[in-house]
Amino acid sequence: MYRSHSCGELNSDHIGNQVTLSGWVQKVRDKGFVVWVDLRDRYGITQLVFDEERTSLEILNRAQELGREFVIQAKGKVIERESKNKNIPTGDIEVLVEELTVLNAAKTPPFTIEDDTDGGEDLRMKYRYLDIRRTPVRENLIFRHKVTIAVRNYLSDLGFIETETPYLIKSTPEGARDFVVPSRMNEGQFYALPQSPQTFKQLLMVGGMDKYFQIVKCFRDEDLRADRQPEFTQIDCEMAFIDQEDILNTFEGLTTHLLKELKGVEVTEFPRMTYDDAMKRYGNDKPDIRFGMEFGELNEVAQHKDFGVFNSAELVVGIAVPGAASYTRKEIDALVNWVKRPQVGALGMVYVKCNEDGSYKSSVDKFYDQEDLAKWAEVTGAKPGDLICVLSGDTHKVRTQLSALRMEMAERLELRKSDEFAPLWVIDFPLLEWDEDTKRYHAMHHPFTSPKPGQLELLETNPGEVKANAYDLVLNGNEIGGGSIRIHDSKTQALMFDYLGFTPEEAKAQFGFLMDAFQYGAPPHGGLAFGLDRLVAILGGQETIRDFIAFPKNNAGRDVMIDAPAKIDEEQLKELHLKLNL
Amino acid sequence: MYRSHSCGELNSDHIGNQVTLSGWVQKVRDKGFVVWVDLRDRYGITQLVFDEERTSLEILNRAQELGREFVIQAKGKVIERESKNKNIPTGDIEVLVEELTVLNAAKTPPFTIEDDTDGGEDLRMKYRYLDIRRTPVRENLIFRHKVTIAVRNYLSDLGFIETETPYLIKSTPEGARDFVVPSRMNEGQFYALPQSPQTFKQLLMVGGMDKYFQIVKCFRDEDLRADRQPEFTQIDCEMAFIDQEDILNTFEGLTTHLLKELKGVEVTEFPRMTYDDAMKRYGNDKPDIRFGMEFGELNEVAQHKDFGVFNSAELVVGIAVPGAASYTRKEIDALVNWVKRPQVGALGMVYVKCNEDGSYKSSVDKFYDQEDLAKWAEVTGAKPGDLICVLSGDTHKVRTQLSALRMEMAERLELRKSDEFAPLWVIDFPLLEWDEDTKRYHAMHHPFTSPKPGQLELLETNPGEVKANAYDLVLNGNEIGGGSIRIHDSKTQALMFDYLGFTPEEAKAQFGFLMDAFQYGAPPHGGLAFGLDRLVAILGGQETIRDFIAFPKNNAGRDVMIDAPAKIDEEQLKELHLKLNL
Repeated sequence: MYRSHSCGELNSDHIGNQVTLSGWVQKVRDKGFVVWVDLRDRYGITQLVFDEERTSLEILNRAQELGREFVIQAKGKVIERESKNKNIPTGDIEVLVEELTVLNAAKTPPFTIEDDTDGGEDLRMKYRYLDIRRTPVRENLIFRHKVTIAVRNYLSDLGFIETETPYLIKSTPEGARDFVVPSRMNEGQFYALPQSPQTFKQLLMVGGMDKYFQIVKCFRDEDLRADRQPEFTQIDCEMAFIDQEDILNTFEGLTTHLLKELKGVEVTEFPRMTYDDAMKRYGNDKPDIRFGMEFGELNEVAQHKDFGVFNSAELVVGIAVPGAASYTRKEIDALVNWVKRPQVGALGMVYVKCNEDGSYKSSVDKFYDQEDLAKWAEVTGAKPGDLICVLSGDTHKVRTQLSALRMEMAERLELRKSDEFAPLWVIDFPLLEWDEDTKRYHAMHHPFTSPKPGQLELLETNPGEVKANAYDLVLNGNEIGGGSIRIHDSKTQALMFDYLGFTPEEAKAQFGFLMDAFQYGAPPHGGLAFGLDRLVAILGGQETIRDFIAFPKNNAGRDVMIDAPAKIDEEQLKELHLKLNL
Repeated sequence: MYRSHSCGELNSDHIGNQVTLSGWVQKVRDKGFVVWVDLRDRYGITQLVFDEERTSLEILNRAQELGREFVIQAKGKVIERESKNKNIPTGDIEVLVEELTVLNAAKTPPFTIEDDTDGGEDLRMKYRYLDIRRTPVRENLIFRHKVTIAVRNYLSDLGFIETETPYLIKSTPEGARDFVVPSRMNEGQFYALPQSPQTFKQLLMVGGMDKYFQIVKCFRDEDLRADRQPEFTQIDCEMAFIDQEDILNTFEGLTTHLLKELKGVEVTEFPRMTYDDAMKRYGNDKPDIRFGMEFGELNEVAQHKDFGVFNSAELVVGIAVPGAASYTRKEIDALVNWVKRPQVGALGMVYVKCNEDGSYKSSVDKFYDQEDLAKWAEVTGAKPGDLICVLSGDTHKVRTQLSALRMEMAERLELRKSDEFAPLWVIDFPLLEWDEDTKRYHAMHHPFTSPKPGQLELLETNPGEVKANAYDLVLNGNEIGGGSIRIHDSKTQALMFDYLGFTPEEAKAQFGFLMDAFQYGAPPHGGLAFGLDRLVAILGGQETIRDFIAFPKNNAGRDVMIDAPAKIDEEQLKELHLKLNL
């Protein structure tokens, strides 16, 4: 038996007990005649004491030879500690060691195994197994586990059935790039790894499963951006005989449950906002509504004066930044430069300081008098002490720019609190979005999303205006889930493929099985998928998903720990009927 | 709202209620003036009634036009049924329909959606979404879900943390063939899909996770045999600071829990049997111990007479088949032919009828007298009325043959009862097994398995004799799980790779990260993996795993429903830096 207790459970109740502990040497403090060792495992840290007088010189000497991260087993008696440590549960006691076994020696780790490590990102990725020994990383993984258990039990209690869908499926040209898997047994053919189990979950609805979910890995061979992984995990859900209201209610329930169970937070409101409204009010389809700074559209009050920049703009729009009227000239110049950075892309910024005395001081005083600026303050909701920041230009662009500024100001003002949670449904997404590269409309969500009732006709005349039965769940400015009510009849589905530029042959080759299935009695259905990695990170009060993945890949899609991907040998290639084409 | 109730929940308590149901038309019985429709969903079947008098002619006419598998919505009043059906929970009532909406019409399905369908295997695979509508298939999937929920909660309550390991990993030459995934971003390189998360779970132990599990898909590109899938699911577990006893106890607990929760069966005994013993007593490393027919080795009592066949055999071994002394000459001849089939491969069979009067009649009466045969009966445990079947030859072969005969007789005698569960640990497996093809030893379990204490030295002199800390959990003659205590020091691991024929360079290239990890303080650890597909099938009282997989592949590794694998286009190949080599 390697241990009678973990390193996190002994306290003053155990004083006098003989115990056996196993774990890693966190720290050795050698005072010559006495040695203290902090012994660590997943559950905590217990102080061991080795002492020439109370035990033996031999054991003291052996303790002196222990190095950091040695794996040891110690047997001894729990005794009261002289200088108690009130910060840890085991701080009242120590174990006077009578027997010591080194289970495995250890080289000095390449970085310190402490909450604040000295290891850089790259080193920690290469030695991920050591990084996981650090409490913050390990606690993130344990938290992830708790989230999945809570999700599974909640959905299961509602009658959802977790059903595994296949990983070796078929490549489709729609959407992101697939990872493919050459088949040895079917010469010249390939499986694809799923980007999501979308069609399978719809087939399960056709199959009468009624309520499906799955926590499942998905794969996208996209060029990686920061904090995107080629493999990621979804909580994938689908329901039959439901409308949008049922879905929204069900997953409000799940989200409320998770916030309560895991964060002790009671959330009662799930506001709903249309996509159009979100863009108008926040310049963003996933607004963070934990703070204000809503957009004020200023065309009416700022145009038709002598300021040409505004007069020629499609949209003039501003936000009132609380308390920022105190910004110095230098600080404001820096802010103007910030919005002009290529990542934001504004051409300039107009500002109005709302002075405490009720007067205004703006960068466009030449064109606007105090009465004009008072109207701006009214529209943007600015109070004395606030700074109104105004951008202008093409509607879509300027909204995106002002949204970036809004988020930046929220960060600077520390308005994005990690322990505050504000969910929001964004609904009525456009069905299609225009793609400048291919000069055609693409499905914004995916080609299985249904248009709003009665809008199918608009596809002919004004496709960009068609709204979909599609919704996103936004939490603290992050999209954590999204879904739609699906098309469930084969005719509408065929029509949709047609609009998306599929020939009937292509549609049949790619999705014939789904359209066939719809002819055999498909129920109305819809669903939603949560991005688990992001959900867990946000619930954990962080935004970097990599910190919540046990073995993440780097930005080049590599696992630097195992050094994958890697070359395979000629024999293997030949068996797969492949040649390299470098 | 599509429904107020499911099709499984209305009963006499609801009489008088207005309800809305949605589902599939299972059956239409048209009596002209009245039509009954069985409406089906996942939860049950409810009878709808349409009636010219009590509702309207129009609605009656529309009901008459409903076809099988139409998806409909019906509103109406729950009324008492005249001829009650006591076999179903809704059998006391029917719904008098006042409003009928066809939500989706349906073509006639290619096979009947009944418990006993007229559809053949191939058709059911192609239209798997229709097959899932059949109650037995759907119930299997729901049962699978219940098993996974029970497993997760049980392990989670014990402190196991479900941790996701990556799917895009590195190909290794050891073991079965990998499926590989070409990398677009890393030219000429490939990921591999995991055959199991073996090395990752060991790294999690090095990382101090202490107790890990995961229900996870695994992939093997093997030539498919009946009932083997290229992708399959494991319940994968690992623990640190444990010995074999801890593992066996933990997973006895899990198995006991599953049998209790899901089958209502109390299992109290988990006998343990060494591999050597299992082979000697049952000729099989996964014996079904629900019935007897243990092997009796007859060398001592059957050799050194005048029967040359036995004298020259390495092993003479028999079983007593209960009650089979009544077999006719013809039946026995058929049995002899059965053991001589190429799948079994015996050269012949000697039999002894143990007559009810205590006398014996054998096929070798020329060589053995009554006293000799009495000894045979004693060794095989034969009672009056039994038939002793004896095979002889090379030890390993003859055991395998007799095991096949034992299982066949158990099937014929219906001794393999699907509601009886007899688990068994088989322990002390050989560390290595000889491979005739490559003329070298391979790891029987995998190269990370530790040898029994003190046996490392034997590797030099007698490698085939070295026993491993490896164990299988057998249930009703099926291996449902297997695992081992792992090597946890880099020296032993290097030694093992050496014995298995890896050069130090190969070992470093393939498993360097693991051996590195072992140098930074690896704890003693071990684990086990259950085959979920098989476990669920056996708990479900069946043996075909395909019936418990939502979308299985056929024996050629194809998904015939979606028609995968399939060709991909030239552009995609080019992006992956590949050419076909047909």
